[in-house]
Amino acid sequence: MSRGLFVTLEGGDGSGKTTQAEALGRWLEQQGRTVVRTREPGGTEVGVEVREIVLHHRGDITPRAEALLYAADRAHHVATVVRPALARGDVVIQDRYIDSSVAYQGAGRVLDPVEVKSLSVWATEGLAPDLTVLLDLDPAVARGRLDEARTRYDRLEAEAAEFHARVRHAYLDLAAAEPARFVVVDATLPVDAIAATIRERVAALL
Amino acid sequence: MSRGLFVTLEGGDGSGKTTQAEALGRWLEQQGRTVVRTREPGGTEVGVEVREIVLHHRGDITPRAEALLYAADRAHHVATVVRPALARGDVVIQDRYIDSSVAYQGAGRVLDPVEVKSLSVWATEGLAPDLTVLLDLDPAVARGRLDEARTRYDRLEAEAAEFHARVRHAYLDLAAAEPARFVVVDATLPVDAIAATIRERVAALL
Repeated sequence: MSRGLFVTLEGGDGSGKTTQAEALGRWLEQQGRTVVRTREPGGTEVGVEVREIVLHHRGDITPRAEALLYAADRAHHVATVVRPALARGDVVIQDRYIDSSVAYQGAGRVLDPVEVKSLSVWATEGLAPDLTVLLDLDPAVARGRLDEARTRYDRLEAEAAEFHARVRHAYLDLAAAEPARFVVVDATLPVDAIAATIRERVAALL
Repeated sequence: MSRGLFVTLEGGDGSGKTTQAEALGRWLEQQGRTVVRTREPGGTEVGVEVREIVLHHRGDITPRAEALLYAADRAHHVATVVRPALARGDVVIQDRYIDSSVAYQGAGRVLDPVEVKSLSVWATEGLAPDLTVLLDLDPAVARGRLDEARTRYDRLEAEAAEFHARVRHAYLDLAAAEPARFVVVDATLPVDAIAATIRERVAALL
């Protein structure tokens, strides 16, 4: 195998990204692939420090500062984790990538999505995923799932319902604009059915 | 007074920025102006956390991540400290601003200076200083001053002489390109002579 495969998972918190990343990783390892599971923000030592600021800083962070912090985390993560793994021929399964920034900092924080995306394109020197899985879920349903599981919310989870509605629509717009890269899955379907859909798309790329 | 005045100080560590900022601040207060002295990185609570990463993180930070972290600090600082002070009519005297990023992350780290600058222009929504004081000093002389004063170096101070030579030349190029904004001072001159030169340029803007 000359190079790896870069798969990203997107969607709101509570949409099941972690569960699906685990299932996909297990299946790929059964196929004999080496899998690197990672996430943004916080996929590196530097990123853990940045993640602590963007998700848990007490007090406001201005929208542009927030967008730049995510891009900083991404720059370091792509250069030190993702690109080396892809160069080795591994499959990278990543929780959140550029689409998250466009959806959350662009639509959510009401920055220009083209500008937000261009920060990340510069940060990553243009590394695009081979496949992006969007786990689409009504924010009210996602919130119900989180309420059962969480004892505290981070800064983005605590945003109002209207914020999360804008994020969902931004995600769907991104998927509509790049159908070849995205697979959009109804996150209310059974876990196994979703996993099978994702496997099918990944298998076609192997 | 309809609006404030934004003065930035630039130059290598050891060039005397802090001393000159103090002298200028005292003189302006004697003229009845309200002065806000601040710095980047680290002029806000969020910025202190970012400063800790960029200056004291153990281990490498990739150049693009570093540039984005400085821009994030700057975005938050300008929106929450500098712009409000200028709107009140205060004089802001600031240790380091966009020129530092162009010199250190651009020339020093060998990123495209136009791209590095554009990050900060986006971060600050285009806020430019009214006056920038460049304290120009041979890096070898600066290092001699620092060696007397310091017990530890931060990540940038610890860079090699060749890095600091590139930074100095980048600063001088920036000043040559914008003579109306810059005043370049020989930092080996006596402190009082430098202070008088700076006061003269600031007085002309009041």
